[in-house]
Amino acid sequence: MFSIVELIGKKRQGEPLADQEIRFIIEEFSADRMPAYQMSALAMAIFFRGLDDRETATWTDAMLRSGRVLDLAALGAGRVDKHSTGGVGDKISLPLAPAAAAAGVIVPMVAGRGLGHTGGTIDKLEAIPGYDAALSVDAFKRVLGEVGCCIIGQTEEIAPADKRLYALRDVTATVESIPLICASIMSKKLAEGIEGLVLDVKVGEGAFMRTVEDARELARRMVAVGRQMGTRVVAFLTRMDEPLGRMVGNACEVEEAVATLSGEGPADIVELTEVLGGAMVELARGVSFDEGRARIRAALADGSALDRWRRMVFAQGGDLDRLPRPSGAVAVRAGRAGVVQAIDGREVGLVAMQLGAGRARREDTIDPAVGIRIDKKVGEAVAEGEALATILTGAARHVSEAAMARLGAAFEVGDRPVTTRPLVLERVG
Amino acid sequence: MFSIVELIGKKRQGEPLADQEIRFIIEEFSADRMPAYQMSALAMAIFFRGLDDRETATWTDAMLRSGRVLDLAALGAGRVDKHSTGGVGDKISLPLAPAAAAAGVIVPMVAGRGLGHTGGTIDKLEAIPGYDAALSVDAFKRVLGEVGCCIIGQTEEIAPADKRLYALRDVTATVESIPLICASIMSKKLAEGIEGLVLDVKVGEGAFMRTVEDARELARRMVAVGRQMGTRVVAFLTRMDEPLGRMVGNACEVEEAVATLSGEGPADIVELTEVLGGAMVELARGVSFDEGRARIRAALADGSALDRWRRMVFAQGGDLDRLPRPSGAVAVRAGRAGVVQAIDGREVGLVAMQLGAGRARREDTIDPAVGIRIDKKVGEAVAEGEALATILTGAARHVSEAAMARLGAAFEVGDRPVTTRPLVLERVG
Repeated sequence: MFSIVELIGKKRQGEPLADQEIRFIIEEFSADRMPAYQMSALAMAIFFRGLDDRETATWTDAMLRSGRVLDLAALGAGRVDKHSTGGVGDKISLPLAPAAAAAGVIVPMVAGRGLGHTGGTIDKLEAIPGYDAALSVDAFKRVLGEVGCCIIGQTEEIAPADKRLYALRDVTATVESIPLICASIMSKKLAEGIEGLVLDVKVGEGAFMRTVEDARELARRMVAVGRQMGTRVVAFLTRMDEPLGRMVGNACEVEEAVATLSGEGPADIVELTEVLGGAMVELARGVSFDEGRARIRAALADGSALDRWRRMVFAQGGDLDRLPRPSGAVAVRAGRAGVVQAIDGREVGLVAMQLGAGRARREDTIDPAVGIRIDKKVGEAVAEGEALATILTGAARHVSEAAMARLGAAFEVGDRPVTTRPLVLERVG
Repeated sequence: MFSIVELIGKKRQGEPLADQEIRFIIEEFSADRMPAYQMSALAMAIFFRGLDDRETATWTDAMLRSGRVLDLAALGAGRVDKHSTGGVGDKISLPLAPAAAAAGVIVPMVAGRGLGHTGGTIDKLEAIPGYDAALSVDAFKRVLGEVGCCIIGQTEEIAPADKRLYALRDVTATVESIPLICASIMSKKLAEGIEGLVLDVKVGEGAFMRTVEDARELARRMVAVGRQMGTRVVAFLTRMDEPLGRMVGNACEVEEAVATLSGEGPADIVELTEVLGGAMVELARGVSFDEGRARIRAALADGSALDRWRRMVFAQGGDLDRLPRPSGAVAVRAGRAGVVQAIDGREVGLVAMQLGAGRARREDTIDPAVGIRIDKKVGEAVAEGEALATILTGAARHVSEAAMARLGAAFEVGDRPVTTRPLVLERVG
C-alpha cells in the first residue's frame, strides 16, 4: 500500500505522516513485515523531527489496537489509573491504589518492572510471598469488582507493538523521544479500559526528564493525546532529586507503603499520595480536587485504605506476614557533622541495583530483602559518625567497601541551612 | 570494548566519535556482531548530525580495511582512477580510461552497475559479447600491465562493509548523507591501490546532487578525505541536466564511446573526457592540467586511445564486432517547431530504464540493445513533426504510447534562443 522507505524519508525530511500511513507502519511492524532496521531508522528520524499531537495520538491508537483493549464498562463508571515516569523509592502506587479505591475510584492498574536506577511497582509487590501479578483478565475484573483496585503486570496481550518497539528503542538510542515516550505510556494505559488517567511526571537528577521544560512538554503531550482519544488526563510535574520516602528496595518499600496506609508515612509519600489520589477522585467522581484530596486523606486516616490494601493483596494471593526481612544492616556514616544538602537519587538507585534490589539487565533477578534506608533526608542535621543511610542486606550479607563509599558519596553534607523546595511543581491538564 | 547503543546516543547528541569508536563500529558491523537495526539508527543519526572530516576519513579507512586493499605498486607510479557520481548517458569512463592510458596514466578502474535513472559503466561494457568484468585480481593486474587500463566490476573482496551498509541505507532512507556518500565512494576507490583520483560530481536535475552547494560540499569532503589518507583527489562539478552525448542505453553508448575514441564524439562527451583525463594526467605525471588535457586530446586524435580501447576489450574477452543492434527504431516527434529549451535527463533515464535499458531493482535484467537516441539536444532547432528522440528497441519491438508520451514530455520546445551554459562548473582540489 505504502512504501516504508518512502515513509521513513518523508519523516526524515520533516513532513508529517498521514493517519493511514502511521497505521500502516504499526500494522506492518506488528505483523513482522517491516524489519527492525527500518523501524529503528524511523524512530531516529522521529527523535529529530518529532511527531505532532495528531500523529502522536494516531501512533498511540495504532499501538493500542495492536493488542487487546480491556472492556471494563461492566464495573461501572469512575475507572481511573495513575502512571509515574519512574523514580527512586517511588512506591506511591502501593498506598495510592487502595486509598483511591476507598475514596470511590475503580483502579485497574497495569504496572511495570524496574530497570536501571528506578524500581518497579510489580517487583515491589512480588516481594510479598504469593502475590500473583499475572492474573487472567477475568481474575483482574473479579478483584476489581470485589476490592475496587487491582495491580497486575504488563501482559503480552496489551499493546504488543509497544513492547517490541520499546525493546528496539532501548538498543538503538531512540528512547529519549518525547512523542514516542508519550505514545508508549498512553498506548498501554488507554488499553486498560480507563476513563481518566493521572500522571506523575518526575523531574530532576533522579528522573528520566532532567528539566522542567522536557517534563512539561511530555505532560502537555499526554494530556493532548488523552483529549484526542476521549480520555481525561491530568499530569503533575513532581520533583525527583533525593529518593521518595526513606526506603529504596522492594520488601522495605512495601513496609513503608503499609506505614503510609496506617497514617504513619513519610511526609513526601503522604503528600504525593494525597495529590495524585485527589486528582483521581476528581476525575472519577466529578468533585473538586480539594474535595478529592480530603477524601484520600480521610481514607488514609480512618483505616479504610489499609483495609482495601489488605483485601487486594489477599485477593491476589499475597501473604504480608511472610514479607522477607533483611539478613543484616550496615550503616554508612557521615564523615563530618552538618546538614544534608542534597542526595543523588540516581546514585542511590544504582547502588541499590548493584546490591541486588534492582536490575541492570531485564533478565537479572532481584533479592526482595535487599534495600537502602535513608536515615537522613535533605535538610536534616547529622553528627559526625552518625548514619546517613543503612544498607539492608539479603542473601549476600557482605557489602563491598566500594558500594558503601558510593552510597556515602551520594550524600552532600554541608553547613548551609536547607530550605525545602515544593515536591509538586505544577499541574498540567 | 565500547557499547554500540552509547555510541549511537553520542552521535545522536551531536558529539564526534573517536577514531577507535568508529573502527569498533565498522568491525562489529562487518563481523555481524552489530545488528542492522543499530546501524540503520546510527546512519539516520549521521544523516542529521553529520561526520566531520576526521570522522569521515576514519569511517572510510575502516570500511576500506573491511576487505582487500589492492597493492598495485609493482605496476609503477602514475596510478589514477576516475569516479562519477552518476548521470544519464554518462559513458565517459569508456573513452576516458584508454585515452588516459595512452597519455601515460595507469588506470585501475573498478566501476559500478546502474540503478534507477542512471546507467552503469559495467552494464555498458557487458553489452559487448564476451566482455568479462569479473576478472581475478591477478588477471586485472596482468591487463593493467599490458594495456595500462582495465575496467572491472565491484568484487565481494573490496570494501564489503560498504556493500552491506549501502544495501541497508538504500532501504532505510539514509542514502542522502554527504559524509556517508563520501565514505562509500572513497572506501571503494582507495582500495584500488591508486595514488590519485579524479571525481566528476554531477549537479542538476538529472543528478543525485541537485544543488551546486551540495555538490561542492561532497567534492570538498572527498578532497579532504583523500588528503587525510594520502591520496591526491581533484573534483570537478559538472552539469547534468540533459543527457550526456546523444545516446542513453548500453550497446548504443558503447558505439558513441567508440566514435569519441575515433575523434567523432559529441562535443560534451569530448569536453568531459579531455577535462577529466587532463586532471588524471596531471596527477599521474606531474604536468600542468593544460598539458595533461593536450595529451588526452592528442590521444583521441592520433588513434592511440582507440588502440588502447581495442586492446583492453580484447584482453577482457570482449568482441566488439558482435555488439547488439536494435531491432527497430521509433521516433518521438515534436508537436511544434522551435528550439529545444531543456531536456529532463532524469525522465529520459527513467524511460530508458522502463524500456529495459536499466534496472528499477537490483535483480532486474537489462536488454543491451535497448536505448534512446537524442536527436535534438538543448539549443537545437526542431521542425514540427521532426524527431526529438528515437527509441531503439530490443527483444521487445513494441513501444507503449505511454513511454513515447513520457519521453516527448521530457523535451521542452520553445521560441527563445538558448545560450549554452558551461558543462564544467568548477574545480575543487
